[in-house]
Amino acid sequence: MLALPPLYPIVDPAVVRDGRDPVDRARSLARAVLSGGAKILQLRMKGGPGGADAGDVLAAAKALRRLTRDAGCLFIVNDRVDIALLADADGVHVGQEDLPCVEVRRLVGSRRLVGVSTHTVDEARAAEADGADYIGFGPMYPTATKTDTRPQRTLDLLSEVKAAVGIPLVAIGGITEARIRDVRAAGADSVAVISAIMAARDPAAATRALGRLAAAS
Amino acid sequence: MLALPPLYPIVDPAVVRDGRDPVDRARSLARAVLSGGAKILQLRMKGGPGGADAGDVLAAAKALRRLTRDAGCLFIVNDRVDIALLADADGVHVGQEDLPCVEVRRLVGSRRLVGVSTHTVDEARAAEADGADYIGFGPMYPTATKTDTRPQRTLDLLSEVKAAVGIPLVAIGGITEARIRDVRAAGADSVAVISAIMAARDPAAATRALGRLAAAS
Repeated sequence: MLALPPLYPIVDPAVVRDGRDPVDRARSLARAVLSGGAKILQLRMKGGPGGADAGDVLAAAKALRRLTRDAGCLFIVNDRVDIALLADADGVHVGQEDLPCVEVRRLVGSRRLVGVSTHTVDEARAAEADGADYIGFGPMYPTATKTDTRPQRTLDLLSEVKAAVGIPLVAIGGITEARIRDVRAAGADSVAVISAIMAARDPAAATRALGRLAAAS
Repeated sequence: MLALPPLYPIVDPAVVRDGRDPVDRARSLARAVLSGGAKILQLRMKGGPGGADAGDVLAAAKALRRLTRDAGCLFIVNDRVDIALLADADGVHVGQEDLPCVEVRRLVGSRRLVGVSTHTVDEARAAEADGADYIGFGPMYPTATKTDTRPQRTLDLLSEVKAAVGIPLVAIGGITEARIRDVRAAGADSVAVISAIMAARDPAAATRALGRLAAAS
């Protein structure tokens, strides 16, 4: 069974628009997150119109692979299995509209992790049956980083989902310092954080503070 | 050396919006194109915001793989190498902003084809040096199917590019019945067609007519 670090930072360079190119931004955000002590890190760069070019996502993934390896940090790539393989990531994370878990597993084998975003008990059970190593569950709170989110989940539903599966659960969606304790108490093995780190004035300090809270609660 | 069929239809279900879901639309467009005699076919379903879900692209790719195999037609998937592998496509086609040709080759091996979109002599030479099996070249004429196209290329430049590389060249971008002869005469081994087939009242008949013209010119 995978032991997930209690804090799961997601690096999404689109959250911060500072004029630099997205690859540079991803790299410097990852450096900050790692210096804040992260032991798992996901790269999320959505493609498509107005989004990131796959070539840039691969460049960022390779850069983050080097940084995370040096830091002894697990490295997960969102959505694109081809990029996860080329960057030699430790795993890939997919949503319900991405490639199905069983197909992802065919490509990545048993050595790499597969995480699946879920929103209901049924989706969580299906992900486990399909061989996911962990599930994401949310959104727990209002969040600005996803435009197409479903309605918020409740802490009670989180507990139900946690009870329904044997694999680790990562809570996601609008989780801040003030909310970590509740989410962990409801059963989250780990908490994914995007905005509270990406948009922080000092992302390294934010990672450190959130990581301490997550570990202590 | 790959011998490309002279007509290269691209199935892009986003070109036609008929209320059906994109997977159904892709399947019926592919059926029409195959009944029109196509011997190579590319599936292009762009992802991202407002675009296709990767799960749908995979479903369409698997459906088209079955249809093309039965018809003895080469099947190429645009952009997503992971989906090309999972669908057992004959190849993958990437643009300059997609995954680099050498990286794509690492994933698909030598058994599958890699096509690369190019717009200049330098890009064409680089694609060949990187191991592409064929290049796309365009856009030759104004086209409605790409929002971010570069300025039109000329027939003279097509001839220059053709002379600069040893691999087959597929001309693309706004190619219609009236333009096939010019493009072929300038050196195109094959002509890629999207709108003139996708938006035709009878896509099978359009494929047949374009295929005859392409073969005869």
